[in-house]
Amino acid sequence: MNFSILRKGIMTCALGCMPLFVVTADVLPGNARYVDPFIGVEGDGNVFPGVCVPFGMMKLGPDCGNKESNSGWDTNGNIHGFSHTHVSGTGGGSKYGNVLMLPLTGELQLKDYSSPRANEEAVLGEYKVDLSRYGTKVRLTALSKAGFHEYVFPESKESKVIFDLGSCLALQWCETQRLVGSEVRVLSDSSVEGYTRVKGGWNEGEAYTVYFYAEADTPADSIGTWKGTQLFPGVNAQFDSGEKTGAYFCYSTAEGQKINLRVGISYISCGKARENLRQITTWSFDEVRAQAVDEWNKILNKVELSGEEEDKVKFYTALYHCYLQPTDKTGENPKWTSGEPNFDDYYAIWDTFRATHPLFTLLTPSVQANIVRSLIDIYRNDGYMPDARSGNDNGRVQGGSNCDILIADAIVKGLQGIDYEAGLQAMLKNAEVSPGDNERKEGRGGLPDYNTLGYVSSAFERCLTRTFEYSNCDFAIATVAERLGKQDVAEKYYRKASNWQNTWNEKITALGHTGFAWPKERNGNFWPEDRYTVLTGGGWENPTYETFSFELSLYVPHDMKELIKKCGGEEKFTARLDTFFTHKEGDQRWRIGMFQVSNEPGFLTPVLYNYVNRQDKTAAIVRNILENRYKTTRDGIPGNDDSGSMSAWYIFHSLGFYPNAGQDVYLISSPVFDKATLHLENGKTLTVTVKKNSDKNIYVHSVKLNGKSLDKNWFRHADISGGGTLEFVMGSKPSGWSSDGELPPSMSDMR
Amino acid sequence: MNFSILRKGIMTCALGCMPLFVVTADVLPGNARYVDPFIGVEGDGNVFPGVCVPFGMMKLGPDCGNKESNSGWDTNGNIHGFSHTHVSGTGGGSKYGNVLMLPLTGELQLKDYSSPRANEEAVLGEYKVDLSRYGTKVRLTALSKAGFHEYVFPESKESKVIFDLGSCLALQWCETQRLVGSEVRVLSDSSVEGYTRVKGGWNEGEAYTVYFYAEADTPADSIGTWKGTQLFPGVNAQFDSGEKTGAYFCYSTAEGQKINLRVGISYISCGKARENLRQITTWSFDEVRAQAVDEWNKILNKVELSGEEEDKVKFYTALYHCYLQPTDKTGENPKWTSGEPNFDDYYAIWDTFRATHPLFTLLTPSVQANIVRSLIDIYRNDGYMPDARSGNDNGRVQGGSNCDILIADAIVKGLQGIDYEAGLQAMLKNAEVSPGDNERKEGRGGLPDYNTLGYVSSAFERCLTRTFEYSNCDFAIATVAERLGKQDVAEKYYRKASNWQNTWNEKITALGHTGFAWPKERNGNFWPEDRYTVLTGGGWENPTYETFSFELSLYVPHDMKELIKKCGGEEKFTARLDTFFTHKEGDQRWRIGMFQVSNEPGFLTPVLYNYVNRQDKTAAIVRNILENRYKTTRDGIPGNDDSGSMSAWYIFHSLGFYPNAGQDVYLISSPVFDKATLHLENGKTLTVTVKKNSDKNIYVHSVKLNGKSLDKNWFRHADISGGGTLEFVMGSKPSGWSSDGELPPSMSDMR
Repeated sequence: MNFSILRKGIMTCALGCMPLFVVTADVLPGNARYVDPFIGVEGDGNVFPGVCVPFGMMKLGPDCGNKESNSGWDTNGNIHGFSHTHVSGTGGGSKYGNVLMLPLTGELQLKDYSSPRANEEAVLGEYKVDLSRYGTKVRLTALSKAGFHEYVFPESKESKVIFDLGSCLALQWCETQRLVGSEVRVLSDSSVEGYTRVKGGWNEGEAYTVYFYAEADTPADSIGTWKGTQLFPGVNAQFDSGEKTGAYFCYSTAEGQKINLRVGISYISCGKARENLRQITTWSFDEVRAQAVDEWNKILNKVELSGEEEDKVKFYTALYHCYLQPTDKTGENPKWTSGEPNFDDYYAIWDTFRATHPLFTLLTPSVQANIVRSLIDIYRNDGYMPDARSGNDNGRVQGGSNCDILIADAIVKGLQGIDYEAGLQAMLKNAEVSPGDNERKEGRGGLPDYNTLGYVSSAFERCLTRTFEYSNCDFAIATVAERLGKQDVAEKYYRKASNWQNTWNEKITALGHTGFAWPKERNGNFWPEDRYTVLTGGGWENPTYETFSFELSLYVPHDMKELIKKCGGEEKFTARLDTFFTHKEGDQRWRIGMFQVSNEPGFLTPVLYNYVNRQDKTAAIVRNILENRYKTTRDGIPGNDDSGSMSAWYIFHSLGFYPNAGQDVYLISSPVFDKATLHLENGKTLTVTVKKNSDKNIYVHSVKLNGKSLDKNWFRHADISGGGTLEFVMGSKPSGWSSDGELPPSMSDMR
Repeated sequence: MNFSILRKGIMTCALGCMPLFVVTADVLPGNARYVDPFIGVEGDGNVFPGVCVPFGMMKLGPDCGNKESNSGWDTNGNIHGFSHTHVSGTGGGSKYGNVLMLPLTGELQLKDYSSPRANEEAVLGEYKVDLSRYGTKVRLTALSKAGFHEYVFPESKESKVIFDLGSCLALQWCETQRLVGSEVRVLSDSSVEGYTRVKGGWNEGEAYTVYFYAEADTPADSIGTWKGTQLFPGVNAQFDSGEKTGAYFCYSTAEGQKINLRVGISYISCGKARENLRQITTWSFDEVRAQAVDEWNKILNKVELSGEEEDKVKFYTALYHCYLQPTDKTGENPKWTSGEPNFDDYYAIWDTFRATHPLFTLLTPSVQANIVRSLIDIYRNDGYMPDARSGNDNGRVQGGSNCDILIADAIVKGLQGIDYEAGLQAMLKNAEVSPGDNERKEGRGGLPDYNTLGYVSSAFERCLTRTFEYSNCDFAIATVAERLGKQDVAEKYYRKASNWQNTWNEKITALGHTGFAWPKERNGNFWPEDRYTVLTGGGWENPTYETFSFELSLYVPHDMKELIKKCGGEEKFTARLDTFFTHKEGDQRWRIGMFQVSNEPGFLTPVLYNYVNRQDKTAAIVRNILENRYKTTRDGIPGNDDSGSMSAWYIFHSLGFYPNAGQDVYLISSPVFDKATLHLENGKTLTVTVKKNSDKNIYVHSVKLNGKSLDKNWFRHADISGGGTLEFVMGSKPSGWSSDGELPPSMSDMR
């Protein structure tokens, strides 16, 4: 692909800013043309801009700067090379960045072989860059377990391709990845294999091993290896002694000479890596890239949109972000065999249960069923379902045991092929068996308190977040138990689902509102008023995790009716939400009022107006965010993408509705596109049409669901899962639509 | 070695039985000649009869019968082949049995290639057997990470050597090993590598991988591989797809043609396995065997003995058993790198802390220091020190966190090079952080109870054993804390060391004795009398683990003074011990009275007479066991050898003293040999001379320690660790020696 051709289509976006990268409609087939891999790579987005197919294990991209970045890529700093494993949109200590390759010229400087870059660009299926230190040019593309490197060399008698097995991403000050060992073996003048073994990183996971097998289309003139800081020219292998090892191929190249390399990776063996390389049977870069784009279009073309081109770029890039993770490692499990699907890099389910997984359920339910099966299989073999998992190991738990909600979401939406009895057992393990020393790894921390006192006391970290989230997770358990006919279990957990109330302190008043979640000691005493505040929070050891009590006190997704009562009724609750979205607290770049656009604990908050039939306020706040906080720039995602979480939030709302995860309920917000056609997996079609849509006509004036007038602000998954139509008519002012309609269900309605 | 020459030395042993195997003194050098690898392989001994050097990672031997045996070997059944990893003297589900090789003729029958055996024999450093199905003959020898196979074939055009990576030992009904995956690659007509990955087994450990690299001295005519049940002639590799794989070399052999193979193994990679193979640089079987014997003699020759030849066979074979495990896997850790020693196959420390490790401390203190360092390193990296560990993973905890006692034992005996501050942290982790769901894997189960109530309530399994053992472990913590100057920690744990008293039920009377450990509920109520009995127990879920309350109620190694008080004073305590050793309860093949000779919870009980100055009774019971329960037959160990535990018990007592682990105290019992010279690591010599010694003169009439008369029945490690002399004079009747002497110390004397 000629990037200069691509670039001729650049246009000015509606907001007047110069978008980083907008491709013309005729360069890539299908909706792949709308994906810009560089949206969200800067700011707090942490998006991976390298090459990868949906759920691909191979995430091939550059490792930059100090190699501390989560995605490998960094705005500044040299490129060290191109490694084959990454995560996208994540925070905390960096993970992966294994098996690093680089084309260079001249003497190999092991101490620092990195190069400044030039002409760095990417489209879906292709990343390219020039390495100015060496005069080499790189293009990368990839399938799910195999990558393709195209290196173009200058004229040089000392051209080399290096394979560094000692390199990995490593944030130095916390959650650091550490090399455990590495090994390399040159098999011929054009093939090499080996592995790197690394532990730690964000989830503080146990050691994982990335094996590789690589082959070049050009025989090397000579080869060499290294161990530690010593080069061994002509020596073809270095065994694992816990040190850094690597290998290199030497070439004498003519100006512009192209050397292609194919690389298979595996988490179980070099032999499997070699087998995985068979995914690529050609030496044509373009053929491989076309296959990668084709795999993406199978996802992206599930949605057809009519609307602004820039909104399509936002939408399809968001959809692309959602399908980057979790990683499908089926057939690549070094820990057990079971015949079940094997997904990894849940990073974290605390983020993705809210919108990403409900999106999978809507668009690709078979994939979501496989993901849930993988979670249950992890429970069977590792003891607990993960809240997060990476490098084949559980950790870290953020708040609740939110896998529970995925299982409830699956059963209420009728996902097939899941052993729900085992799922319930996995949920009950979370709810009843303390993980002990592993509280940040899996299960529920503070469980002894929660199960005896009815709340997590302030003796435990994240006590309020845990209490509120456990309540919601307990509702999920009750939901599944009831559907499996286990009424006694259901009753027990419906009761526990009210536990959030045990930390509700009626005596706290803030900004004119009374009653908030408040830390409580084991003896039942609330902390004194001067010891805490409802306006700040966050961090692992705070009572509220990545949130603060004012926000958390709005988080009872399963029992809004009771929450509204606790807040003093509908009017006072509405006023509380108004305060939440208008009182300017904290950095307003990442907030709207107190609302943290960038942060999962508030994901549901804008649609809470629906629970007091003020859907017009939902529409106003959502459209504000969609238009002004999501952009097509490198910092275009309002916060860490969190494995596509921010992106999934965009997708649902831009279609006009948003899920309350764990329930079969969608809440109507405000659609962006004139028309959206969703091709469901069952062959049916869901069509969303929006009349009188514009940037100003953001209020819903009427809705028809499957041809019938809808006078409430929500509907059920079953209403659309068999296909159907959703017809909006919009206007510039609130219309009173649905203001007398049946409220979305709360726990008392659902039991 | 010619086995017929060996056999000419067979003689009748003192007891009139035909010993299985007694070698003449001139066949093997040094004390190696006294080791009979077949002692303890039958009955409940579970000893491994294959080849291995001290702490060797390579334990090469046959896998027999249904492959359910713990040691691989079995009395009955065919031989499937010779695998490279085993454990010795263990119970429960079988572990290891990886990378299995076999020489065969004719067509390879994958479904069952096992063969009946003939002429099976072993001496130290060599195992040999004939495979009658194929007419092949096998000799095996091994160094620490590399094994040597000598195969002799008949005349055959279809001779083969097979490498089975799908085989492992697997007890079917519990703690079963399961194959996770395997891979094989034939590298040339005489070399092959691959791995087998297995999870489960006794400790229910996570997956471990055994890599191998093998080379033959004879090029194969052709090669082949298999996957699952399908053979692939001429195909040189099978990648890991979770199935069983293997490879074979084909030869056309002349009658009596010898084919030698060398095999390196590794737990981290094939490259490391190949590196490990460099231990063997010869194709001479005899040279390798001589090296193995030499390594053993470095241990065995540390003790010179004068006495009965049969007793020497018992002693040196016992010494050999002790040094089979733990396995030194330094440089072979796939989970982390640290520069610390890495030992595995602690199987279990609950067994070995009592006598085996104190024996290491006496004979090879540098090894014991390395072992303790490895335990602390496991804490640093895996979170807890193990009570048991195998396949690089912790589990299962039997009773207390008895690693604590090893650290106390090390500090009181002055072992050098150990980070005792880190050791204390590791102990405090055991004592203060609940392992949650991992109660059978590591840490202390029932800890929330123990640390709030002062005892483990009957809500938890093994509640009485845990309470008693935790008390002893807490004493160990106090011991270390005090020596590190942490008086507050020491005080706290000295107090907790009395917690055993909280389960002492004064109201229980049995066999005329009153006051026993008794299950107690959380609310402080003892179980009613009709719900439990002091005479039976055992099993994971019983209040007493592998013991019963009458026996456990004698187990307070650190505070005998208080225990004797609780039992009603010295006289009543003596009577209680008398009852214990005479009242016939249970199967008397494994018991003396109620005393379970075969079982660790009673290891210390015979010397408890010393604590009431009735050392004569100690002597009588110990000599009875040494003479009558330990034999030179295949079933010559009175119970599971438990990684040399039974054997270490023999060794100490046969030298005339026995350690109270965690204290620097040896209790005098009754020596067997006329003279024992111990060559200590520091170059000094400890000499034990015994005058008037005979089978009947079992009572101590006087003792001189370092030339001075010793009028008490115990001495300290420091008294002998710098070398010295211990001079016994024996007699046929109790002499009253030491009956007024200073009693061995109890907690109140030691603080």
